[in-house]
Amino acid sequence: MSDFLQPQQIEEQSFAIITELLGDRVFPPDEEPVIKRVIHTTADFDYAENLTFSPDAVEKGVEALRSGCHIVTDTSMAMAGINKTALGRLGGRVHCFIADPDVAAEARTRGMTRSAVSMEKAAALDCPCIFAIGNAPTALMALDRLIKAGRVKPALVIGVPVGFVNVVESKERIIKSGVPHIVARGRKGGSNVAAAICNALIYEIGR
Amino acid sequence: MSDFLQPQQIEEQSFAIITELLGDRVFPPDEEPVIKRVIHTTADFDYAENLTFSPDAVEKGVEALRSGCHIVTDTSMAMAGINKTALGRLGGRVHCFIADPDVAAEARTRGMTRSAVSMEKAAALDCPCIFAIGNAPTALMALDRLIKAGRVKPALVIGVPVGFVNVVESKERIIKSGVPHIVARGRKGGSNVAAAICNALIYEIGR
Repeated sequence: MSDFLQPQQIEEQSFAIITELLGDRVFPPDEEPVIKRVIHTTADFDYAENLTFSPDAVEKGVEALRSGCHIVTDTSMAMAGINKTALGRLGGRVHCFIADPDVAAEARTRGMTRSAVSMEKAAALDCPCIFAIGNAPTALMALDRLIKAGRVKPALVIGVPVGFVNVVESKERIIKSGVPHIVARGRKGGSNVAAAICNALIYEIGR
Repeated sequence: MSDFLQPQQIEEQSFAIITELLGDRVFPPDEEPVIKRVIHTTADFDYAENLTFSPDAVEKGVEALRSGCHIVTDTSMAMAGINKTALGRLGGRVHCFIADPDVAAEARTRGMTRSAVSMEKAAALDCPCIFAIGNAPTALMALDRLIKAGRVKPALVIGVPVGFVNVVESKERIIKSGVPHIVARGRKGGSNVAAAICNALIYEIGR
């Protein structure tokens, strides 16, 4: 066992092992790198089953990023995990308003979660955005309301909140909403999964 | 489905559901909050099986944090996920050297990963530290070498790197090393898991 492998070699070996372990499973070519990067991030092969893509979701996400689209996320963890250098080369930025004092104050006043209020603040951005939700179902539900109200039109919604309360339902709402989406059906997901999907889309542009 | 639940209510409901889903499973009382918080973070019940604790690992970690021990981690994602406000109230801080220019330069010179070199930089800190490794097996292997060389004596090692290359082996090394540890055996883990375990230990002090 060598610990002198470089990250690039480790990643190539990891993807080869993932491909081997997936055996005969065949995925749509555009979805495969997203699915494999999420498995690479979690070592959890359930994502080969639960990741759900709307038609051309990957192509739409990649094209938006290629055009300098920004990314909005619900957690500082997801923001930390997104490759901001590679995104920046495309002209994009990551926005996360969860820790903003005005968001906290409004959440207290209205009895909502900061996650939900942070989506309303993001909806006011005047640039095309991909919304990547890795933690809070309340953020995904707020986003669904904003979309239905015509207050925001995301280039893509990455809906992968994790947990046990309202998580499954919030994802099904997005799947039914008609917005371009990549969703992890069921309870699983997370900020790491949200970041992995964003990075998979960004890296497709480098290929 | 209400999206006006507050985070505290959502968390309480989530832990109640996790407890229900775990059924008759009985865990050591000190390990149970750690195991449940990791499941809360991942919705992955495999962690009820793969989390491995050295004797009194939780007590040792909690006591160290109560005494103002710092936390070293291998990723900015884990650093983002650790509750730094609660840690700060105990006198602790989080350190992550992965993005430091001197670490990158030395990694290039020596043909090592930045993760491994960042552990050597952390070993030079002159305060008691918990090491929480959520991503890089090379960081965990470097830490094991530093421990064996007597260059660092962690209060606790949280060994939860994720992946397919050297990950399982790096965790088994830490389990055999005799250092107090909480390890997710096998391939699974992640920065989110590392942060969840740190937070579980921090929150025990609030109880």
